[in-house]
Amino acid sequence: MGKIVCFPSLSEEQQQRIQNTAPGYTLKFGKAKELDPAELKEAEIILGWSPLVTEHALKQDSLLKWVQVWSAGVDNLPFADLQQKNVQVTSANGVHAIPITEIILGMMLSHSRWLRQAMLHQQQAEWKAPAKPLPELHGKTAVIVGVGEIGTETARILKALGMRTIGVRRSGKDVPNVDQMYDMTGLHEALSQGDYVINILPLTDETKHIYDQTAFEQFRSGACFVNVGRGPSVKTEALLNALQNGQVAFAALDVFEEEPLPADHPLWGMDNVLITPHIAGSTEQYADRAVDIFVKNLEAYVAGDTLPVNLVDYSHKY
Amino acid sequence: MGKIVCFPSLSEEQQQRIQNTAPGYTLKFGKAKELDPAELKEAEIILGWSPLVTEHALKQDSLLKWVQVWSAGVDNLPFADLQQKNVQVTSANGVHAIPITEIILGMMLSHSRWLRQAMLHQQQAEWKAPAKPLPELHGKTAVIVGVGEIGTETARILKALGMRTIGVRRSGKDVPNVDQMYDMTGLHEALSQGDYVINILPLTDETKHIYDQTAFEQFRSGACFVNVGRGPSVKTEALLNALQNGQVAFAALDVFEEEPLPADHPLWGMDNVLITPHIAGSTEQYADRAVDIFVKNLEAYVAGDTLPVNLVDYSHKY
Repeated sequence: MGKIVCFPSLSEEQQQRIQNTAPGYTLKFGKAKELDPAELKEAEIILGWSPLVTEHALKQDSLLKWVQVWSAGVDNLPFADLQQKNVQVTSANGVHAIPITEIILGMMLSHSRWLRQAMLHQQQAEWKAPAKPLPELHGKTAVIVGVGEIGTETARILKALGMRTIGVRRSGKDVPNVDQMYDMTGLHEALSQGDYVINILPLTDETKHIYDQTAFEQFRSGACFVNVGRGPSVKTEALLNALQNGQVAFAALDVFEEEPLPADHPLWGMDNVLITPHIAGSTEQYADRAVDIFVKNLEAYVAGDTLPVNLVDYSHKY
Repeated sequence: MGKIVCFPSLSEEQQQRIQNTAPGYTLKFGKAKELDPAELKEAEIILGWSPLVTEHALKQDSLLKWVQVWSAGVDNLPFADLQQKNVQVTSANGVHAIPITEIILGMMLSHSRWLRQAMLHQQQAEWKAPAKPLPELHGKTAVIVGVGEIGTETARILKALGMRTIGVRRSGKDVPNVDQMYDMTGLHEALSQGDYVINILPLTDETKHIYDQTAFEQFRSGACFVNVGRGPSVKTEALLNALQNGQVAFAALDVFEEEPLPADHPLWGMDNVLITPHIAGSTEQYADRAVDIFVKNLEAYVAGDTLPVNLVDYSHKY
């Protein structure tokens, strides 16, 4: 009888959904560190990820066939080992469309509508209006870099708010609510048109340090940068320079090259930067949506079919 | 030849639009205080409002026929005097639909997505995630109190974000994107259903202090209050109590019974309050949109027709 090992903390209802989908399997729940290594070695399916999976479940004699990771990003996985052992990987991509769209919008509006400045004035009990009228999102241009499930949802909402939307994605293929789509070769041309540049790219060899000095030099005056993708897509030194010399007017950053962001990092103290501690994707609804994905894949797995949701392509690593 | 006096600061292009619409009229531009009182006395049409209008343009022998005010609210106007002299009043109602919808959304998300707390931690260079997963707007209920042009636009966007929308308006008539509409007698029933209660009511005798202790007692646990309507719709003491005893979890306030909010007011220091200094409605696009309204009315006025946009009903005072 096959074994499924689940690392995330799940409600009883969520556990029951998994068991009902694969009645022939034994389920084991627990954090990777707290489980007996033998459990990992015997696991045919793992929900979640831990370096201990590499250690115990990718051995010659371990039984692993499929890992359903709990995150959208899979950039931290040992693809060579997984591929050699022929383990399938599926991601929780799509779980983040709603929560990340909401935080992107909150970050944009907290800047455009002066809410950050108002908070600082509130700390001084200071009634102080902006020196000149504030901008609206309506009528402005958003460049969404990385138009997958999240970017498609973001585009839908920004379009509803009356923004012009430009997208950049590997395939260059159109999606609804994106007025103009570029492939990656058009990145710099796209960047030059944005009042807001929103990075949602996954981290791959191709996207590492894609926001370098040259990229930031394309930004139009007054443009804002939102990064809810991956930290290493940005050359931090180049961003710091761009924020200091005004090429980038404002940055809202949820992800960083080094996390946690070190306490002495200059980004903390910049008044044109909003920092959130890698929390963009996680909301109360996360676990339910991730279990939805797992259960859909599990149904297919049990039936011997191809995993239908978010099967990771080893060659692209996302 | 009739005279039009315009108080707001207008671009040359905006001035020219007005002149082109009423070629037979003399135009005078300037702040009320800086103009010769004789100009006000001779004005047939005034764009904007000032107490000096009452002083100089509502006399027995003054020529005023129509005031196009520059705001949506007209609660500060001397209706008895205006009515006695048979002066028509039109408001700039509708100009605020987009900017106020955007700030409402910013206020809601700055709370729900922890951006205010993240800012406080940033000041301490502190990488600190929330203790439990954050809520989404998606799936939550927004109660929009006062569903006019602004509330209709707000409902459209909140619906796009996947919220349930409840409306309260004098007529109780349905509008698109509001799932359930109440008239004013249903206010308390509506309030009891909101995760977010958004006040956009105009100030009238009927709406003064409509948010009193009993109203706040209807709020559900964890509910947030957004006031971008008028300050005196709220009994400030009742709101303070509700924030202190947790009946209201969070309030974002752009308007107050006393403005500016006095420096020693307890609201400033409350960590579950976000204060903005009455800036919700004013953005870069304000003047163009207000001139649009004025020009539409002016076309009709010149042709001898009824003023088509936002003619104020003296009996309702809005």
